[in-house]
Amino acid sequence: MSAALATYKAQRAAFIEQDRSLRRENIWKARRSPEEIKADEIIRKIRAKEASTIWKQESDSIPHPFPGMEFLTGRSIIVKTKIYEILAKMPKGALLHAHFDATVNAEKLLELALKHEAIHVRVPQIVTMENIKSVLPSFRALPRNEFVHGPGVTDQRYTPDTWASIQRARDTFDPSLGGPEGFDKWVCSAMIINPAEAYGTHNTITKIWQKFTSTFLVSTGLIRYIPVFTEFIREFLLSSIEDGISYIEPRINFLSRYMVGKDGLENVPHREWLLIFDRVMNEVKEDMKKKGREDEFIGAKVIYSTIRFIAPEELDWYTEDCIALKKEFPHLIAGFDLVGDENVLRPLIDYIEPLQRFQSRQREEGVDIPLVLHAGETLGDGTEADDNVYDAILLGTKRIGHGYSIVKHPKLMEICRERGIALEVCPISNEILRLTSSMPMHPLPIMMNNGIPVALSSDDPGTFGHMGLTFDYYQVLVSSEVTGLSTLGALARDSIEYSNLGDEEKRVAMKNWEERWGKFIEYIIVEGEGE
Amino acid sequence: MSAALATYKAQRAAFIEQDRSLRRENIWKARRSPEEIKADEIIRKIRAKEASTIWKQESDSIPHPFPGMEFLTGRSIIVKTKIYEILAKMPKGALLHAHFDATVNAEKLLELALKHEAIHVRVPQIVTMENIKSVLPSFRALPRNEFVHGPGVTDQRYTPDTWASIQRARDTFDPSLGGPEGFDKWVCSAMIINPAEAYGTHNTITKIWQKFTSTFLVSTGLIRYIPVFTEFIREFLLSSIEDGISYIEPRINFLSRYMVGKDGLENVPHREWLLIFDRVMNEVKEDMKKKGREDEFIGAKVIYSTIRFIAPEELDWYTEDCIALKKEFPHLIAGFDLVGDENVLRPLIDYIEPLQRFQSRQREEGVDIPLVLHAGETLGDGTEADDNVYDAILLGTKRIGHGYSIVKHPKLMEICRERGIALEVCPISNEILRLTSSMPMHPLPIMMNNGIPVALSSDDPGTFGHMGLTFDYYQVLVSSEVTGLSTLGALARDSIEYSNLGDEEKRVAMKNWEERWGKFIEYIIVEGEGE
Repeated sequence: MSAALATYKAQRAAFIEQDRSLRRENIWKARRSPEEIKADEIIRKIRAKEASTIWKQESDSIPHPFPGMEFLTGRSIIVKTKIYEILAKMPKGALLHAHFDATVNAEKLLELALKHEAIHVRVPQIVTMENIKSVLPSFRALPRNEFVHGPGVTDQRYTPDTWASIQRARDTFDPSLGGPEGFDKWVCSAMIINPAEAYGTHNTITKIWQKFTSTFLVSTGLIRYIPVFTEFIREFLLSSIEDGISYIEPRINFLSRYMVGKDGLENVPHREWLLIFDRVMNEVKEDMKKKGREDEFIGAKVIYSTIRFIAPEELDWYTEDCIALKKEFPHLIAGFDLVGDENVLRPLIDYIEPLQRFQSRQREEGVDIPLVLHAGETLGDGTEADDNVYDAILLGTKRIGHGYSIVKHPKLMEICRERGIALEVCPISNEILRLTSSMPMHPLPIMMNNGIPVALSSDDPGTFGHMGLTFDYYQVLVSSEVTGLSTLGALARDSIEYSNLGDEEKRVAMKNWEERWGKFIEYIIVEGEGE
Repeated sequence: MSAALATYKAQRAAFIEQDRSLRRENIWKARRSPEEIKADEIIRKIRAKEASTIWKQESDSIPHPFPGMEFLTGRSIIVKTKIYEILAKMPKGALLHAHFDATVNAEKLLELALKHEAIHVRVPQIVTMENIKSVLPSFRALPRNEFVHGPGVTDQRYTPDTWASIQRARDTFDPSLGGPEGFDKWVCSAMIINPAEAYGTHNTITKIWQKFTSTFLVSTGLIRYIPVFTEFIREFLLSSIEDGISYIEPRINFLSRYMVGKDGLENVPHREWLLIFDRVMNEVKEDMKKKGREDEFIGAKVIYSTIRFIAPEELDWYTEDCIALKKEFPHLIAGFDLVGDENVLRPLIDYIEPLQRFQSRQREEGVDIPLVLHAGETLGDGTEADDNVYDAILLGTKRIGHGYSIVKHPKLMEICRERGIALEVCPISNEILRLTSSMPMHPLPIMMNNGIPVALSSDDPGTFGHMGLTFDYYQVLVSSEVTGLSTLGALARDSIEYSNLGDEEKRVAMKNWEERWGKFIEYIIVEGEGE
């Protein structure tokens, strides 16, 4: 190499380092152990090997696979990789962005519901071969004296828009539509997004959101029944723990004032939801302790949410409700948000006054409920949805839900970096909801290179069929040559750092995580020897 | 509105302004005429109207259209819009990024070629119903004594891999394959990318580049024949002028050392290519002058290009050749580039030494040939293609071809802004070559909000079927609510400002453009009265 070239290369290396100097993993880089450096090399080696072997195998069903490709298509390849096997064991830190109603997979939810004869199903038309793909079931638990013993939903004697027992509807589901298994398939497919929809029939943001919204209309009738709700919470917590998540801040939708109780009456108020949440969480903690695994689960706190179609003047009821709940359950309420499709619902600017009142009322009541607002989950440039990012920051949001469009805003990125406003980034959700076509197109590297804290999140794992965070971490790792094991570690640390845990809780969570991270690195080194 | 809300809104407006303060249109914003402000409002009004009417019309062929959608699908809607009609009349400034071989539409190129009996066609298999979609024609002009009078390429008597007269091959093209029109369709579809390929069969970067590269292999045989080359230049200049482009810097590929002359012999050296280029350009200028339209065309200069598959040691031949041409045609050589698919060809780092030698040799010879390097035309993060952006800047590139991935690099964006390194952004090309799925997903707003100069460019209009720059300006305008008429004006001004015109030429070009811009604004106001 000539002296001029050597000089050039040294200058170039410094230049690249300077360009990447804001990345958050740099904070921990200096004190990486030799083991972590070795594990990082192992991961990069396996990734490179799999990129040129398993990801190059053309097949009729997946004609040209690539790392970070459309998740619903590539999933069958992902699960065959060593990287996936390894990441499944990674301690993920906290899950900070997940909509509670979409945190249990559809099959499991249906299984929970089928245990209860109180649950009934209703359809606007008798279900037939012709309409089965478009007719959506509605569910509700009824009081015992209203139980229906009439015909199922494929029966010619069924009267549209009347209730039928879920169990009977399943048992009598037309054999030509698959019988009971056909019923399960029909119900589950109404609660999930499949690849044909995401990448074919609904391949635009507008259309996929129509499908996405409809999945909630179906599942809510099953979840909003106390016995199912209770087991749903448990299922969510357990499956998260199994994935290596040690703390969770689900957004629970408190739009409906009451849930249906065990007696089939819609009369269970919000405070009882939280009592149940608290009880189940404590039972799970207790079980973990019995297994000697208490370090793996710190707990969960709720982000109180309502939806952006309510009128601004209606918001006061919810913020007052939230304050009352916070006063009764200070350890359980971790934040407040308004959710829904930003591209079509009301922008944050519509809610400035009630949100300002919310903040002054908190001061009066001596409580602190941080805003954790969705903003910028859009491709719009200068649209109301894009402008939500300005309002979220002006309103003092603690984190931003998605913040997908923030990369367009240099000043806002600077503020997020300087004030420590973390982004809850949901890679797979963004891709399935068509903000990006694949992970290499995702703006995450822009966020990271600008030094903004990021907590990877799953958003709606039940609807997207990717429980836990392993798949999200997978997609991130295989889509960037800059990102390595230590980057994933930095993301996990940020998820704890920017959670709404109290200081002492956070210290414990971080300590536990660091211990598990050390063991994870040891495991990678052992696995690496076989490679 | 409460006082608190009024304060909030004032603060918000200032915040948004601060966030957008780096945008280049701000330079001219203060001195916008009242007419321009009015015309901008008209454009925004028509855009909003068309977004909610013509772009909302569902049809079976385009199930869910939206502004900025896939160009090859949305094109039939675009041409029906008033915005398109208006933008077609906009003075575009300079076209700074276009690959010469793809600057004339396929039908026109074939029409030019069919005038010459010297041109022959060759295929590896007899063309049949079964293989017509995969068999690609090769072309070459032959010397008179080698003219072939044998069977055409669909004839059972045709011997694969032998030459057939293009005229005869066309006349005798199997009637079951469409006869002569079938021949035209076959040849043209081998030179363009169609929507079924871009959005279906070849819907990944790797696959679309295979198709894209193959189009050049077909067209080059027609273009590299002096009589066609001559008229091809004229056609390119005239179609650009008709679209409102007043200056052009095409990249001409000088990889082959000789072109085929009128006599069918491959012996025409590079200096003669430039002599012809100069002559045709002057003829076009002369014609424009005769029509009293000399202000609409300043001229064209060539960016000398070769391809990134050559060995580093081979590069010296090209750089010396370029220097010799620059000395002979100082007014014609405007820059130097290395082109091709960055994801698979050699990275710039391989060429550092010859490029450093090129720069010292220029100093010895007293010439100045700016580097105008392609870099970052990729979705890679930290890949060789992405890292090309570091090298382009370290090598002192005057502009960056594409620079698509630069948005990931905060330091590099700062340098581009501060040093005035413009990006040649090709929206439609990026979308068809699958870097982005649609225009709203394109990173252009990030570049603009970071204050980087941008010259919108068409890249390969012949291959993509979008002659001129009107469609590129259209896609940009309809995909952002921030962007308005004055933004387009700023882009056009930047294309002149960051061209490689000399100071005096640039002054004239800018003056002419400003006059035409004024007339364009008057025209919009008149059109607006009818809206």
